[in-house]
Amino acid sequence: MTKILVLHGPNLNLLGMRERTIYGHATLETIDQELMAAAGAEDEIRTFQSNHEGVLIDEIHRAREWADGLLMNPGAFTHYSYAIRDAVAGIAVPTVEVHLSNVHSREEFRHRSVIAPVCVGQISGFGWRSYLLGLQGLLAYLAENRAE
Amino acid sequence: MTKILVLHGPNLNLLGMRERTIYGHATLETIDQELMAAAGAEDEIRTFQSNHEGVLIDEIHRAREWADGLLMNPGAFTHYSYAIRDAVAGIAVPTVEVHLSNVHSREEFRHRSVIAPVCVGQISGFGWRSYLLGLQGLLAYLAENRAE
Amino acid sequence: MTKILVLHGPNLNLLGMRERTIYGHATLETIDQELMAAAGAEDEIRTFQSNHEGVLIDEIHRAREWADGLLMNPGAFTHYSYAIRDAVAGIAVPTVEVHLSNVHSREEFRHRSVIAPVCVGQISGFGWRSYLLGLQGLLAYLAENRAE
Amino acid sequence: MTKILVLHGPNLNLLGMRERTIYGHATLETIDQELMAAAGAEDEIRTFQSNHEGVLIDEIHRAREWADGLLMNPGAFTHYSYAIRDAVAGIAVPTVEVHLSNVHSREEFRHRSVIAPVCVGQISGFGWRSYLLGLQGLLAYLAENRAE
Amino acid sequence: MTKILVLHGPNLNLLGMRERTIYGHATLETIDQELMAAAGAEDEIRTFQSNHEGVLIDEIHRAREWADGLLMNPGAFTHYSYAIRDAVAGIAVPTVEVHLSNVHSREEFRHRSVIAPVCVGQISGFGWRSYLLGLQGLLAYLAENRAE
Amino acid sequence: MTKILVLHGPNLNLLGMRERTIYGHATLETIDQELMAAAGAEDEIRTFQSNHEGVLIDEIHRAREWADGLLMNPGAFTHYSYAIRDAVAGIAVPTVEVHLSNVHSREEFRHRSVIAPVCVGQISGFGWRSYLLGLQGLLAYLAENRAE
Amino acid sequence: MTKILVLHGPNLNLLGMRERTIYGHATLETIDQELMAAAGAEDEIRTFQSNHEGVLIDEIHRAREWADGLLMNPGAFTHYSYAIRDAVAGIAVPTVEVHLSNVHSREEFRHRSVIAPVCVGQISGFGWRSYLLGLQGLLAYLAENRAE
Amino acid sequence: MTKILVLHGPNLNLLGMRERTIYGHATLETIDQELMAAAGAEDEIRTFQSNHEGVLIDEIHRAREWADGLLMNPGAFTHYSYAIRDAVAGIAVPTVEVHLSNVHSREEFRHRSVIAPVCVGQISGFGWRSYLLGLQGLLAYLAENRAE
Amino acid sequence: MTKILVLHGPNLNLLGMRERTIYGHATLETIDQELMAAAGAEDEIRTFQSNHEGVLIDEIHRAREWADGLLMNPGAFTHYSYAIRDAVAGIAVPTVEVHLSNVHSREEFRHRSVIAPVCVGQISGFGWRSYLLGLQGLLAYLAENRAE
Amino acid sequence: MTKILVLHGPNLNLLGMRERTIYGHATLETIDQELMAAAGAEDEIRTFQSNHEGVLIDEIHRAREWADGLLMNPGAFTHYSYAIRDAVAGIAVPTVEVHLSNVHSREEFRHRSVIAPVCVGQISGFGWRSYLLGLQGLLAYLAENRAE
Amino acid sequence: MTKILVLHGPNLNLLGMRERTIYGHATLETIDQELMAAAGAEDEIRTFQSNHEGVLIDEIHRAREWADGLLMNPGAFTHYSYAIRDAVAGIAVPTVEVHLSNVHSREEFRHRSVIAPVCVGQISGFGWRSYLLGLQGLLAYLAENRAE
Amino acid sequence: MTKILVLHGPNLNLLGMRERTIYGHATLETIDQELMAAAGAEDEIRTFQSNHEGVLIDEIHRAREWADGLLMNPGAFTHYSYAIRDAVAGIAVPTVEVHLSNVHSREEFRHRSVIAPVCVGQISGFGWRSYLLGLQGLLAYLAENRAE
Repeated sequence: MTKILVLHGPNLNLLGMRERTIYGHATLETIDQELMAAAGAEDEIRTFQSNHEGVLIDEIHRAREWADGLLMNPGAFTHYSYAIRDAVAGIAVPTVEVHLSNVHSREEFRHRSVIAPVCVGQISGFGWRSYLLGLQGLLAYLAENRAE
Repeated sequence: MTKILVLHGPNLNLLGMRERTIYGHATLETIDQELMAAAGAEDEIRTFQSNHEGVLIDEIHRAREWADGLLMNPGAFTHYSYAIRDAVAGIAVPTVEVHLSNVHSREEFRHRSVIAPVCVGQISGFGWRSYLLGLQGLLAYLAENRAE
Repeated sequence: MTKILVLHGPNLNLLGMRERTIYGHATLETIDQELMAAAGAEDEIRTFQSNHEGVLIDEIHRAREWADGLLMNPGAFTHYSYAIRDAVAGIAVPTVEVHLSNVHSREEFRHRSVIAPVCVGQISGFGWRSYLLGLQGLLAYLAENRAE
Repeated sequence: MTKILVLHGPNLNLLGMRERTIYGHATLETIDQELMAAAGAEDEIRTFQSNHEGVLIDEIHRAREWADGLLMNPGAFTHYSYAIRDAVAGIAVPTVEVHLSNVHSREEFRHRSVIAPVCVGQISGFGWRSYLLGLQGLLAYLAENRAE
Repeated sequence: MTKILVLHGPNLNLLGMRERTIYGHATLETIDQELMAAAGAEDEIRTFQSNHEGVLIDEIHRAREWADGLLMNPGAFTHYSYAIRDAVAGIAVPTVEVHLSNVHSREEFRHRSVIAPVCVGQISGFGWRSYLLGLQGLLAYLAENRAE
Repeated sequence: MTKILVLHGPNLNLLGMRERTIYGHATLETIDQELMAAAGAEDEIRTFQSNHEGVLIDEIHRAREWADGLLMNPGAFTHYSYAIRDAVAGIAVPTVEVHLSNVHSREEFRHRSVIAPVCVGQISGFGWRSYLLGLQGLLAYLAENRAE
Repeated sequence: MTKILVLHGPNLNLLGMRERTIYGHATLETIDQELMAAAGAEDEIRTFQSNHEGVLIDEIHRAREWADGLLMNPGAFTHYSYAIRDAVAGIAVPTVEVHLSNVHSREEFRHRSVIAPVCVGQISGFGWRSYLLGLQGLLAYLAENRAE
Repeated sequence: MTKILVLHGPNLNLLGMRERTIYGHATLETIDQELMAAAGAEDEIRTFQSNHEGVLIDEIHRAREWADGLLMNPGAFTHYSYAIRDAVAGIAVPTVEVHLSNVHSREEFRHRSVIAPVCVGQISGFGWRSYLLGLQGLLAYLAENRAE
Repeated sequence: MTKILVLHGPNLNLLGMRERTIYGHATLETIDQELMAAAGAEDEIRTFQSNHEGVLIDEIHRAREWADGLLMNPGAFTHYSYAIRDAVAGIAVPTVEVHLSNVHSREEFRHRSVIAPVCVGQISGFGWRSYLLGLQGLLAYLAENRAE
Repeated sequence: MTKILVLHGPNLNLLGMRERTIYGHATLETIDQELMAAAGAEDEIRTFQSNHEGVLIDEIHRAREWADGLLMNPGAFTHYSYAIRDAVAGIAVPTVEVHLSNVHSREEFRHRSVIAPVCVGQISGFGWRSYLLGLQGLLAYLAENRAE
Repeated sequence: MTKILVLHGPNLNLLGMRERTIYGHATLETIDQELMAAAGAEDEIRTFQSNHEGVLIDEIHRAREWADGLLMNPGAFTHYSYAIRDAVAGIAVPTVEVHLSNVHSREEFRHRSVIAPVCVGQISGFGWRSYLLGLQGLLAYLAENRAE
Repeated sequence: MTKILVLHGPNLNLLGMRERTIYGHATLETIDQELMAAAGAEDEIRTFQSNHEGVLIDEIHRAREWADGLLMNPGAFTHYSYAIRDAVAGIAVPTVEVHLSNVHSREEFRHRSVIAPVCVGQISGFGWRSYLLGLQGLLAYLAENRAE
């Protein structure tokens, strides 16, 4: 059994309600259900959203004790939260970073992720499917490294 | 009737108690009273202060359901909170950014506001009157755009 | 009685005739009339427009001898005229900088104002009302500092 | 039936033979077989590798006439080939960019992709599985946009 | 009949008298005559030189009422006059920017033109013939867009 | 009697449990005990840890009413929290910044502390002893300035 | 008799087929015919397109033995091919650089041409007519310098 | 007999009336008299002040016909007027640049003079005596080069 | 017994005689005595000052043969002496860098220490006590690492 | 027996025919002969020139199977070909980079070599002798490392 | 009586022997004699040259005890010696910086003087006369400030 | 007979004693002997090491009177000693710069040599053999230029 924590960063609670032309019609609830459906019967997916940097860090710390992997969309924190970066680096849980839209096509300052360097990989641009692909990649990564 | 949310960012609860030569003697309470007095009898002003980025974002999200306009002094978050910027962009509530002191006369790194691009306008340098001018500008903007 | 010089920089004579989706329908004449109407009966407002940097500087120098305050929209000179900046710094007349549109939402190089550091405050984004708010802020500033 | 062109950029022909601690043991041949196995029976996958920028561009141009989607690992061209970027922008075939390793964890100059802005999305860090996830994302994207 | 305003910026009145190894022997008068000879019998060419930024802006504003096209060598203003740029953007008259010498071969800071982004096109390096080629390009552009 | 607030920033609650090769085996509890042991019998040491920027700011504000000095390891907030910087500047309590590891030997962007300019001094690189040295320096500073 | 080599860089073979709103409807074939028609009866125009940097360099080298002038649209190579720049500098054949669109109005990194400094002149923004104007300028330049 | 044009740039007409702690008590009139007194009986000094860039350029052009040397305090134009720089480069009259205050001790952007590279030398920091030293240096330079 | 070399860089011989408001009244002699008093009876402290980069390097080289630790205030060499940095890196003697004033509160270019990356730690801002704290930190560091 | 591949990058086929004041009179053929003469009888030198980045990469890949060392003058590719850099890093063949002229004395952007970091060493400035010295250095390096 | 120390930095002992086209034929000895001749009978001029940064600093320190003013050509130290800058700032002796050639016309990195901000003024471009003008400026400055 | 001065910069006296994994086991004495052995019987090699910038400059000045060539490893001075650069430029003795390790593979700031632009050539990465290759290159250069 594999246990995954799915973290949604700031403003993602508005998903499906705001700026639909950019972010699509899927709500956070839908995404969470898709992820649970996609996970194997024996896997456990816990999801969590917060607009608070510190609350996200606390949750990451807690994941250290139960989760095998971390799937995270850090939202705007992607670009400046060295504290989340340190939290990810501090726990030994493999992490995958996902983004709904193609962060590389937006303004210059948005390109850079301060969190990416401490992650396994990064996926962006596939709307809510970025999460799905991220989950698959994370599960495969965990399976492979467990086997070794 | 027009409903306005007034948001005060981090450290503004110290107003009137700290560094008075820069920020003046007015306390936050005084400013809030001035704003309420300045608003028309039929207008509603709700004020809120927090030192927490996430708490401010939650409040901005809530404003989406009741407020016609947002008047905000983001304090130090002005310079790096892309999360507050995304929150403002995510709700469709016209926002005006105000600052007590002339942010353009301070050190280089302080000049830039990451929130300004998603606001209607910006006012700085008039002490507590920046809020008053901001409220007027916001009300006029709302009246004009409602009429159209 | 308070005396205010209102200065309009280059290309503002085209106002209301050009690029209306950005700058609105108000002409410079309308703005000047609004400002005069807004000023108290005992106040004096003189307005002046020029496309010439040197002519604006001459006018700023003259203001030193009669004006109590200066309300200025430096137009494109905002971004490079250190000569206007020095003129404002050289006379001891409190100055407020205003802009029709939100200068902070335009291209990178447009963000910076070389004049702002020597001004009392800055207002931008409220169309012709930026002038009105600027006048109010300037009058209040002058009243307060005279009293002291 | 969906037709996909898979492009491998410079030095990827050495895959599985060089620097295995970074890039893993999979050869290009294995990856191509994995992709074909992963595609539906009714889908067509054509793969191509070249160390020549011009040859890759020619191939991208040809894709314009037969392919529904493009899956590309541009290798080192990621960082400077504006010519490949223009080729991708010039044909109207949705493109997904993939990387074996986490490009965001390498040196500074390697972070930036000049090709990403004209792609649907980007996946990096999952070894040969980056291709697999990219293919899935691309197929889902095509299915969704065809339906509309 | 097509009406063209030809504007020569600062220091161009010295043409043919100064630095001939760089700028050639043609005087401004000669260039103006060449342009008139090159124009069709039914076309009208008016030429104007000034060393004053404001005077050039006034002339550009006037062109708004009579000219079909604007051919301009902004001289040194090329590199910093956002005021001329705004003037060109403010009138709806198609503009072509020309330079005698190859501005791209000079020092770094000289490469960039702040005016080019609001022009139809740019020609540099052909001596006085830059004007001639610019006139041809402008006339062709006007003919084509009028026809549509 | 001297009263000192010791603040530990984000992720420091993981101390002694994570990345021991970098940060050593001491836990936060041990450090707090060492500090209390090091302080004189007549001194009061209160310690506090949080992963929340806002919670730290609230605590700094409270220190204004009881503490004589502030000893702080801002963790990752060191590099971007202008809000904490403003909080320290806003209260008049002398502050010393400490770091476990040598922040100057890490990556470029980590060198800069936005908080250091408003502190008395900075100590880094001595593991948990950085706190001890910081406390000594702070107590000596307070004793000296009280005497004057 | 004057002999001119016309070089079209990468992706220009798609001209008239892709992104017509930006690049117009003219195909490369049409442009070549226009150039031949424009040249005098006694002049010789040879045209060549390639997506390969090396092939273009080979062609430039060959031009050294037969051509009097070089007319080149380097496409995306404009921005980074120091190898083409060296090739142009290495042969002693006068070269004119042309661009269909106004390269100065596109993104920042597109402004700079690494090839321009070794050219006679540069023309951009007139669609396929940029070539025509470039040919005229080149022929006039050659006539003038031959005469001397 | 040596003929010198002394040019004073923008805002220098306010000298002795404004910011005396920085610029001293000398007025422009005094400086002009000092310069005339310092010049030899057989030398001719003409002085000129303007706040207009174009007017200064016209005056520099005129100097070409009568002056042997140019002594100039370009004021704020020092930092951005490429047009004045081109004017100085265009006439063949040796020029010395002077500043009242030490321009090197002010803010970063003030350090750079775009005019200095085309001058013989530069003097700054000696108040009105900067002019006097500049005149001496210029006269000596002219004497020496005339002799050769 | 532990042997420590204390090195004072350029201008520190003026200590207590110059700029006392910044650097305090303590002379170098006093500091040296404080350090010797602070060291244990069994420890040996040798102190040395020089304004010469090369002399300091020679001394560092010599320390390689007798000293257990190095306590250094590199003064202005902090910011550019890669030669001292290489000397410190070349000998295997643990080094602590100290500064009298808070180097992080001065101008931008002063923040960076090119020597810090090869040191154990850095202390600044405590006046002459920076040395004392540095000595304690160094002795503790040596004791701990010797034990291991 | 030692086997060396000598690679000449773009435009080097023009050597001895172009810009002789910079690059000297030696042709590529001469250089190749000098290298063969300099090599020991038992060593094998194969030389290759191409203007095509991809062709050079193919050749580098092939070298992986037969060559003991690689001597390369990457020409203009020095400054931007990350693809060649990756090729060199990908094969385990020790590489020496040579340049005819002193690349460090040319323009700023020419200083940096993106290939140098993956090479054994770099030699520049000795004309065709740079190759000769490079060969000697490479042979000595190979001899030494083989022995170990 | 006024006492002046004249300091000549590194390589100035070669003056008149090297690169005469740039620096002229005057030797250091000649310059020193000119300065002594120029000084009043009652003034004392001591001159000193060294190629050693530390030796110059020692001399500056000594000047603190006898000199009224310091005239210095720091040579190449101008651009990086923060140690000399600190020495000048540390003694309270007014200092004037002089240069033989126009430092502002040389390469970019040579423009900046790290010493200028702590000097009274700066003179450059007049050959050996720069010293003469500097001495005059310094003497006048000292006379004026003594009088006050 | 050819006379060569070999200069070793700061910290090179530690060679063979420090950081052997980077710099190898050869001592300075060994290198000097290798160089003498490599020189022809009729050549004269004088070697010199110093940690003092000024002492190296004095030695360079002296070389002007007896040496035909200069072979120098400037050590850490490579990156900031404009004074050594000026010394090399001031004497007319051809100079070759050598480095033991590949300076281009180290950290960013280490890439740049401020001395290289005034040298004949540069060699790095071959350990003590860099000197040997440098000597050969220098002797060949001298022979060639003497012959001319």
